[in-house]
Amino acid sequence: MSPDVPDNVFLQRWEKTRERLAAAGVDGILLGGGSDLAYLTGYEAMPLERITAFAGRLSPPDSKPALIVPALEAARVRPRPAVYSTQSWGDTTDPVEVIAQAIPDSGAVVVSDDLWAMHVIGLQRRVPGVALIPIGEAIGGLRELKSPAERDALAEAGSLADKVMVQIQSGEVPLVGRTEAEIAADIASRLLAAGHDTVEFIIVASGPNSASPHHHPGSRVVQADEMVLFDFGGRFNGYCSDTTRCVHTGPIPDEVRFVYTILAAAQEAAVQQARPGHSLAEVDLAARSIIAGAGFGDNFIHRTGHGIGVEVHEPPYVTELNSDPIEVGHAFSIEPGIYFPGQWGMRLEDIVVIEADGARRCNNSDRSLLEV
Amino acid sequence: MSPDVPDNVFLQRWEKTRERLAAAGVDGILLGGGSDLAYLTGYEAMPLERITAFAGRLSPPDSKPALIVPALEAARVRPRPAVYSTQSWGDTTDPVEVIAQAIPDSGAVVVSDDLWAMHVIGLQRRVPGVALIPIGEAIGGLRELKSPAERDALAEAGSLADKVMVQIQSGEVPLVGRTEAEIAADIASRLLAAGHDTVEFIIVASGPNSASPHHHPGSRVVQADEMVLFDFGGRFNGYCSDTTRCVHTGPIPDEVRFVYTILAAAQEAAVQQARPGHSLAEVDLAARSIIAGAGFGDNFIHRTGHGIGVEVHEPPYVTELNSDPIEVGHAFSIEPGIYFPGQWGMRLEDIVVIEADGARRCNNSDRSLLEV
Repeated sequence: MSPDVPDNVFLQRWEKTRERLAAAGVDGILLGGGSDLAYLTGYEAMPLERITAFAGRLSPPDSKPALIVPALEAARVRPRPAVYSTQSWGDTTDPVEVIAQAIPDSGAVVVSDDLWAMHVIGLQRRVPGVALIPIGEAIGGLRELKSPAERDALAEAGSLADKVMVQIQSGEVPLVGRTEAEIAADIASRLLAAGHDTVEFIIVASGPNSASPHHHPGSRVVQADEMVLFDFGGRFNGYCSDTTRCVHTGPIPDEVRFVYTILAAAQEAAVQQARPGHSLAEVDLAARSIIAGAGFGDNFIHRTGHGIGVEVHEPPYVTELNSDPIEVGHAFSIEPGIYFPGQWGMRLEDIVVIEADGARRCNNSDRSLLEV
Repeated sequence: MSPDVPDNVFLQRWEKTRERLAAAGVDGILLGGGSDLAYLTGYEAMPLERITAFAGRLSPPDSKPALIVPALEAARVRPRPAVYSTQSWGDTTDPVEVIAQAIPDSGAVVVSDDLWAMHVIGLQRRVPGVALIPIGEAIGGLRELKSPAERDALAEAGSLADKVMVQIQSGEVPLVGRTEAEIAADIASRLLAAGHDTVEFIIVASGPNSASPHHHPGSRVVQADEMVLFDFGGRFNGYCSDTTRCVHTGPIPDEVRFVYTILAAAQEAAVQQARPGHSLAEVDLAARSIIAGAGFGDNFIHRTGHGIGVEVHEPPYVTELNSDPIEVGHAFSIEPGIYFPGQWGMRLEDIVVIEADGARRCNNSDRSLLEV
């Protein structure tokens, strides 16, 4: 609940946000809990059905936004009268009514991309003169430009994940004969031992499961002479790690080695493209064109990456359709993959943060396909 | 991912749902991931920004709904062609386009209460002739009527939570001198040791923190001679537990004992009202009127309860405004509380499931305020 963060940080974030929104022709804002609300207020709302909202008007510029909380959670909120007014709503009040008082009654109001349908539809009925617009559509990610301190935090989280990946690559983590689920539990312990505050997700995908990009680690026992894909991340000081490497439990067949060479080249090319002045699509296409050029275009079945910060997935998204420019402060994954359903697959992922001179990698474990 | 549940279970659930929706004048359905989608398909979608949708038309009655999944997660889905058609969408496709093909292009379509705003607004633009309605508004909770097997599962989960509560009430869990966070971690271990598959939430609120209904366990050290409120739950075989008791770390002052007598009477009265033929509001008011009659109406700052099942909070909600009738198969909490901000608070909570002859309690630890 960020009790120690001074008001000034939140005032600066709100002013920057207000300017971006005003430049996009927006008149008001409504965030329904989540990371954007925490970013602007320091308050981590409970993700339950009772809405916590950050709502306000953009003009006049000194309009004070409101933090609207369920009455039974009001005691959790630190009052910050310089940043927001605090209002609470009880279980016999319609929160839409309270929110409607805090936003303009005409014009355009941005809402959290994940605001609940019941609140969206409730507001559309209550303030029919307002056009509700997903905030991602209006300005992209509210938090997508990371400060130098945030970029350092991402690099630090990445280095903690790397420690565990090095343990896997060195053979320190037993694989053959254990189930994916057992190995995932082992990795969870190691992520915490390495210094993460929490574990966010772990994929261990062995043999044919490595061809399922979001495989859930299960009861399959890892065999000798097969691919094992590891994709995991945790959170440290509020920022997330996320990295993917593959290892082979035995001598690497020539075909696998060849495809991996393509994958590694594609990932490197994409990292090279990730710099101010290029578009996000150029990053995606740098990887995609190499993989397609080698004849594996149909086997790369997802975008090249996603933004990362206090959430594992957040804007900007690195797709061939996203022509938005890369800016200093962007942070995203670069993770091309090549998958052969029913056989095996591979993916290689680093987080990068964008500095003035290009991409700075937050992950630096060995990018080769190692035999363990 | 319920691989072992036969198609027939899902076909029956869909048929029941279809009939309820049709009776409410609805023409189509769109669920965006979550527990309702899992209930109708057995598939647990990843709760990420790429939408997994269950979408369909209600007529003709044999229309087959579609399970629409991100391409990179398609390998996780078990095909059940008797239940749904499976479609996937890639990272360069707009999922709204795929969803629009699967729902009617006019009439009323219910959507998950928590469908993301970006999808709600995207669909409103794409199929402007359709009125999107939150499903809770149209029919209440899709899963709110629990089968006998589901009610037994809730009772079993409740008995596991009770084991831990008995450990606390017997003094087996050290309190004085430990922080709330330490005690919460201890309770988490005990919930798992008792047989829960997962821990869902834990509130440990000591001294003045007990007056904050949704207090987050923190660094406060529990003292002698004060109130400590415990509210926790886990999941067992897919169903949730949730129970609240208070203990006093030393002799109980007369005033506290008196207020607790009111609380316990209010909770008992509400449980007595929880039977088919009464309304949910009558349950709330049974508790509320006793507490208000004793002069503490302003100190009971939340509804009396919430539905529970595969989620900790789900419909129906037990509020003084919810005049919906109680039906056999309902499952909800009965948890009045009395809070004195800055001083102390208390709450008493059992889960009940509704049988033909009234409420069956899923929690049966001592309902007294015990001195530990």
